[in-house]
Amino acid sequence: MSADNQQERLEPFWISGFTDGEGCFHIAINSSKSMKVKYQVLPEFRIVQHQRDEKLLSQIKDYFGFGSITINHGDRKEFRVRGLKNLNTLIKFFKEYPLKTSKQENFELFSRVINMMNNNKHLTLEGIEEIAMIASKMN
Amino acid sequence: MSADNQQERLEPFWISGFTDGEGCFHIAINSSKSMKVKYQVLPEFRIVQHQRDEKLLSQIKDYFGFGSITINHGDRKEFRVRGLKNLNTLIKFFKEYPLKTSKQENFELFSRVINMMNNNKHLTLEGIEEIAMIASKMN
Repeated sequence: MSADNQQERLEPFWISGFTDGEGCFHIAINSSKSMKVKYQVLPEFRIVQHQRDEKLLSQIKDYFGFGSITINHGDRKEFRVRGLKNLNTLIKFFKEYPLKTSKQENFELFSRVINMMNNNKHLTLEGIEEIAMIASKMN
Repeated sequence: MSADNQQERLEPFWISGFTDGEGCFHIAINSSKSMKVKYQVLPEFRIVQHQRDEKLLSQIKDYFGFGSITINHGDRKEFRVRGLKNLNTLIKFFKEYPLKTSKQENFELFSRVINMMNNNKHLTLEGIEEIAMIASKMN
């Protein structure tokens, strides 16, 4: 991290507030030929912004030290976090700096799925079914 | 303020982050028969949310100690701040806890208008014209 970036390091409560406005917790369940249970669970966190604020997305990425910046659609970019290890760190962050909107309910459902995945429940058909039920409750 | 509300007092950086996502600085210029210059400048700050998060809007109102909660449209509510005194306090807040997105540019234009109004420039035709020009640059 450069000296410039350090100076501009974001405040964690700012990130929490911005996520309440712009963040999205999402669970995708895709069919997969390579998986034993034929379904793959893909949990993801993302923040989408117009490309004029791409630098800010990079600052958020710098804050966490993981995630990637990709094209979302047209002139929109997204900061995206995938992978159990990173998502567990993200969950710890939002437990320390909690969301205040009803997005908190989504976050709690998302956390439940990540917790199940930590315990390899997504590798069984029963687990997949339970995850699908939880995901269906998310906005 | 009740003990409950004090416990739940919002963090200023959270409010800044949430405003970067959901807040809006707006300058309206309405024709007015009662004004000498025939135009009235109406600066306004608002945060619109689905009514399920009305309680949160009230917490934001409690934080500032001013503003009002009204119906925005359909099932959406808004926290709204009008009046020079309150808007000056709001500007002081966002100078201490700055916005990070390109919404900051809007905020700076908004601040310029409020500063002109502090100096009664909105009561002259030249002032109104300058304010209209500044307002046209806001997203």
